[in-house]
Amino acid sequence: MALIVQKFGGTSVGTTERIQGVADKVKGFREQGHDVIVVVSAMSGETNRLVELAHSMQSQPTPREMDVILSTGEQVTIGLLSMALNERGCPATSYTGSQVAIVTDNAHTKARIKRIDSERIFKDLELGRVVVVAGFQGRDEEGNITTLGRGGSDTTAVALAAALKADECQIYTDVDGVYTTDPRVVEGARRLDKITFEEMLEMASLGSKVLQIRAVEFAGKYNVNLRVLHTFQDGPGTLITLDEGSAMESPVVSGIAFNRDEAKLTIKGVPDIPGVASRILGPVSRANIEVDMIVQNVAEDKTTDFTFTVHRNDYDRATVVVEQIVQELEAREYDGDMKIAKVSIVGVGMRSHAGVATQMFEALAAEGINIQIISTSEIKVSVIIAEKYLELAVRALHSAFELDREPMEDNGV
Amino acid sequence: MALIVQKFGGTSVGTTERIQGVADKVKGFREQGHDVIVVVSAMSGETNRLVELAHSMQSQPTPREMDVILSTGEQVTIGLLSMALNERGCPATSYTGSQVAIVTDNAHTKARIKRIDSERIFKDLELGRVVVVAGFQGRDEEGNITTLGRGGSDTTAVALAAALKADECQIYTDVDGVYTTDPRVVEGARRLDKITFEEMLEMASLGSKVLQIRAVEFAGKYNVNLRVLHTFQDGPGTLITLDEGSAMESPVVSGIAFNRDEAKLTIKGVPDIPGVASRILGPVSRANIEVDMIVQNVAEDKTTDFTFTVHRNDYDRATVVVEQIVQELEAREYDGDMKIAKVSIVGVGMRSHAGVATQMFEALAAEGINIQIISTSEIKVSVIIAEKYLELAVRALHSAFELDREPMEDNGV
Repeated sequence: MALIVQKFGGTSVGTTERIQGVADKVKGFREQGHDVIVVVSAMSGETNRLVELAHSMQSQPTPREMDVILSTGEQVTIGLLSMALNERGCPATSYTGSQVAIVTDNAHTKARIKRIDSERIFKDLELGRVVVVAGFQGRDEEGNITTLGRGGSDTTAVALAAALKADECQIYTDVDGVYTTDPRVVEGARRLDKITFEEMLEMASLGSKVLQIRAVEFAGKYNVNLRVLHTFQDGPGTLITLDEGSAMESPVVSGIAFNRDEAKLTIKGVPDIPGVASRILGPVSRANIEVDMIVQNVAEDKTTDFTFTVHRNDYDRATVVVEQIVQELEAREYDGDMKIAKVSIVGVGMRSHAGVATQMFEALAAEGINIQIISTSEIKVSVIIAEKYLELAVRALHSAFELDREPMEDNGV
Repeated sequence: MALIVQKFGGTSVGTTERIQGVADKVKGFREQGHDVIVVVSAMSGETNRLVELAHSMQSQPTPREMDVILSTGEQVTIGLLSMALNERGCPATSYTGSQVAIVTDNAHTKARIKRIDSERIFKDLELGRVVVVAGFQGRDEEGNITTLGRGGSDTTAVALAAALKADECQIYTDVDGVYTTDPRVVEGARRLDKITFEEMLEMASLGSKVLQIRAVEFAGKYNVNLRVLHTFQDGPGTLITLDEGSAMESPVVSGIAFNRDEAKLTIKGVPDIPGVASRILGPVSRANIEVDMIVQNVAEDKTTDFTFTVHRNDYDRATVVVEQIVQELEAREYDGDMKIAKVSIVGVGMRSHAGVATQMFEALAAEGINIQIISTSEIKVSVIIAEKYLELAVRALHSAFELDREPMEDNGV
């Protein structure tokens, strides 16, 4: 018998039929003797409907009132799911974020959780009740309703699991786990039984949108066992846990992540003098453009080339800023490219294995793929390549690191 | 400068355009220097949508969870109206019933208000803000969300006006005031400038659905000046206040109320013995059928006839109960009629004027209308007549009591 927090997102509760399905699932867990806390999102489409209503009232909706309106989405779902559970003879009680209470700071529409009062929840669990909690929302110290921002329901679930010291936090989604890479690109992509928080963070930040980054960080910080599962298919899913340290048990590379969301800009012939990087990136960030990769190589002839990548949506705005910078720095010229893709290998095993990057570059070279930019972190190597090579590169790396093969059983060797 | 509570119902806030219109109206009052608290209902249609969702989950929805779901309707409206006011440079803050807090008992879906904390509201008013409060809802002592039942928004407005000692509670509707009778029936029907709480109660309970009875009772109990006004037309509306006592200033009859919602049942040849009335009405009320008028005349030959009226929707169920009663009491037979109507004259002036009932009966007789049942209270005389005479009767009475003429100015004569 375990204490489990389960989170069902907007698609999982998108229709009344699906809410009934979730109720069946939750009831099954209760019948196995587990204590269950369920966190739900608004029914899919509902949040967008409410946002539109708000924008029809005010060009820049007052954030406090936005939260009053948005929080009703989850409030309807908790009532409906509790009814469906009661109908099944599985007693349930719903709580809004305010009622729990999930206390946050007062940064409306993007609040952060400060603490959770777990007294009422424990009382209900003792009475044999399922507790259904509205995700994505809380209240500040003054009792104003707050929301946690997009993906906040994952964070609510993890925070509850941490506060209640739950045995597991299960995030139900439309995929049956975390894969070595996108199965739509690589046929042999394989579901991982386990992945570390750090690897998951790198995978998530690279576009594997299974879990919200904030929720993974939170789970890592409070050591919450996080499991990703499919809502409507049975299966073990993927468990995200602490790195247990022994590299022998970890494959060198756990997964291949990629995205096509970026564009690159290169300023050529930049004077190689102190402070030049901030003179380039200062204006960019002041224009509210987020920069991802930044590469500067050693200088030749007292000038250097400076490259960075931005989100494709920001590319046009970024070129305007860069044009200005070229004039101010008396750089030679600038150059931009939207048709790029970023491919990364991720794995905690890299830490203790040399030559992983080399193996990656060789695999790409063998396919004739030119590498434009390289950037590395402790458990990740990322490269920028021409977009047209993306699928080829992912497949080549997936095979080079033998990700299509089941890993050997952990046998303590 | 006054402190005003204004209530806008579901139709008044039925679309985003109408909410904008309400915001314009509220802003106008602020600019006149008044302190304004606005109570709003859910956008029309929203409550029904939520009720349907609930019933798709559970045949008999859990009342506590019903309230969780239903209360979201007003919560969306308060956010939207606050945004519209902020957009107009008229600072506003919204509060749910829980946030105010409007504390109720725990009778979910039909809770009664116990007390209101007015501290936050006064603080906001002092800061020059408009306070927007969700009608129809509150919370119990444990923090569970409650709703007050249909028409609860009127009650919220009156209760707030009482708690805040407001100068006036304005209920905005789709009519421009309380009329001497239904203008669709009598062309000369006239808007009343003033009416007493007692008269309003009698009018309301007879089918003039301008205000909820509970709200009028509440206003009478706490002596809240209540005004009925049209949302989208300017005008003074009708003020509902205490009876100021001097009959000289009151017209004898203030209005003619009527309804077609009732059906009558007569048990004939009932033994005239003690306890017979309760042996008839006991089974009826145990069947959850509400009885309105009850008439029993003096006995002849040791038997009597016993007549009562019920809502037409309950007529079929009532005949089944009555059939049983006839057998048990060994009464002669029973008789029923759905095609009846109830017409009443209402006025506090009746108290000090004899012969008002006679004047009523004469007016009906002059039109050849037979009276089937008569029932009276201190400020009301009601008769049951055949439904086909309804309009004729109302017009005859309206004219007999000179309700189409403007009353003389109160000049203390």
